Amino acid sequence: MKFATLDDGSRDGALILVSKDLKTAIAAGDIAATLQRALDEWKQVAPALEARSDALNAGAAEDSFAFDTGRCLAPLPRAYQWVDASAYVNHMELVRKARGAEMPPSFWQDPLMYQGGSDHMLAAHDPIAIRSEAWGADLEAEIAVITDDVPIGCPADPAGQHIRLLMLINDISLRNLIPGELVKGFGFYQSKPASACSPVAVTPDELGSAWDGRRLHLPVLTFVNGRKLGAPEAGCDMTFDYPTLLAHAARTRRLGAGTILGGGTVSNLDRSRGSACLAEVRMLETLAHGEPITDFLKAGDRIRIEMLDAEGRSIFGAIEQVVECVQPAES
Amino acid sequence: MKFATLDDGSRDGALILVSKDLKTAIAAGDIAATLQRALDEWKQVAPALEARSDALNAGAAEDSFAFDTGRCLAPLPRAYQWVDASAYVNHMELVRKARGAEMPPSFWQDPLMYQGGSDHMLAAHDPIAIRSEAWGADLEAEIAVITDDVPIGCPADPAGQHIRLLMLINDISLRNLIPGELVKGFGFYQSKPASACSPVAVTPDELGSAWDGRRLHLPVLTFVNGRKLGAPEAGCDMTFDYPTLLAHAARTRRLGAGTILGGGTVSNLDRSRGSACLAEVRMLETLAHGEPITDFLKAGDRIRIEMLDAEGRSIFGAIEQVVECVQPAES
Repeated sequence: MKFATLDDGSRDGALILVSKDLKTAIAAGDIAATLQRALDEWKQVAPALEARSDALNAGAAEDSFAFDTGRCLAPLPRAYQWVDASAYVNHMELVRKARGAEMPPSFWQDPLMYQGGSDHMLAAHDPIAIRSEAWGADLEAEIAVITDDVPIGCPADPAGQHIRLLMLINDISLRNLIPGELVKGFGFYQSKPASACSPVAVTPDELGSAWDGRRLHLPVLTFVNGRKLGAPEAGCDMTFDYPTLLAHAARTRRLGAGTILGGGTVSNLDRSRGSACLAEVRMLETLAHGEPITDFLKAGDRIRIEMLDAEGRSIFGAIEQVVECVQPAES
Repeated sequence: MKFATLDDGSRDGALILVSKDLKTAIAAGDIAATLQRALDEWKQVAPALEARSDALNAGAAEDSFAFDTGRCLAPLPRAYQWVDASAYVNHMELVRKARGAEMPPSFWQDPLMYQGGSDHMLAAHDPIAIRSEAWGADLEAEIAVITDDVPIGCPADPAGQHIRLLMLINDISLRNLIPGELVKGFGFYQSKPASACSPVAVTPDELGSAWDGRRLHLPVLTFVNGRKLGAPEAGCDMTFDYPTLLAHAARTRRLGAGTILGGGTVSNLDRSRGSACLAEVRMLETLAHGEPITDFLKAGDRIRIEMLDAEGRSIFGAIEQVVECVQPAES
């Protein structure tokens, strides 16, 4: 199944099912009003959702309509948990080098994870609103899983069974605010504003053999102003797989239905595949030329993140955002 | 107004209004189904809620019933954002000393804040579920504010106007997991399991002159196994007030309605007032005797956190929790 959330003027939007080719959609709010509700009661509502999805894909759904990603909110427009790992340890090593910081060797054994803000997940076409270009805005293309309820202490294997959906995330980062925050020891807060989501979240079976239950074996395509930044393979060089990351997150607490867990910026050791964030590009430039050449994002810059299946069809729809400088409101 | 969330078997519970003396309550679900909904549409629903609250307090509400804190979920049983500051910088200094770490002097100028997990806010009477006593479970008694929508870049003064409710929080911390997590640089995750909330959240006007729009000037009472740990004054030694903390949180992003922001463990320089967490007690013992005497929480330990008004009446109801060792579930 493929799910999206239609912008109906409400905070949480209305649940719709989308066809495999992303061309048509159908309302599903009578089965579960929102995607959160569907995740809350997954086992109860999945059969009815599957029947409707099958009818849509067979062209047998009467009330279907053309699917327009521009009318979507994020699949979960606000979520109860967004936890982001950094499972491509190779990326961490490069980003640390770029900050002049050492990476502890334990990073290869013990997953790195932070609690992200989830009160506002940006839609795929929402602007990246920054107050200052000097903050060094960057994109980070990631694959995230969405779970139902995961009990405390759940080991990796059963944790993988709680993965109900996958989607793309742009984990927007304000690079120049990171060093000042990390030195304080409490992790990211100001340096990680709202993240954006692909228009569509899909059940694992939609991915066929590209999803092996642990990793997603397809390249993530990233563009800035139409220029290809890279197409690193998401299934390659991922030191910690999704079930392992979920078990790490659930070690001391249960995870509520609708938990979004990201694998971190996709990054490959094979540099010919390019990068999924500007920080990595800048680091590679520094290593090659002594200094970075590529700027961080500026007002007006356009980013695009997408994943295609083996036949070249978009799986999740594209994240397409423009950077906007905003002034604080008065109240 | 005083709000609580009745456990009706659903994940989000049912909104009720509670009388000033915490003795009676009345359903409010017909005005706003949940506290989150009330915060989503605060200006629209507040007048009707106020009228019903007034009737309840006048003894003129026909369908009122006895208020039982044991039947409550957390006011927001799952929230879209829980952000916790450490505004009593004096506490930070002591906790750092206890860890053998230096505190940067910038901590006196720049608020410290981390993103907490909000997918599961414990009810006031929920057990503190830990998998191992060796993790060093501790309580932290805090005052939290709950906001409606705060725009990006909102300065402190208008940010204070977005404070709709206040409540008590027990920010449960696994002390022995903290050093290993903080050295990784991404902040807390496993070391901060679900936090517990007072049964009742109240509008600022319920606090009278004790709330000056920036700080709450009353002692927070903390007990472990019936022994008083302390009664530090929440309005004293709070280096950063709530509007300042909200402005810090909103610097790079808007805050969604229902954001819970904590001030951090209440801590006074006047040590005769006692402490609001065991880490501070242990640090003071170390300074006095060369080593800590008090243990962290063990299975069966009971904690109680409460705040009384000038007349000795409980404002928020008490957080009363028992520590339980739990085994991981099989799936």
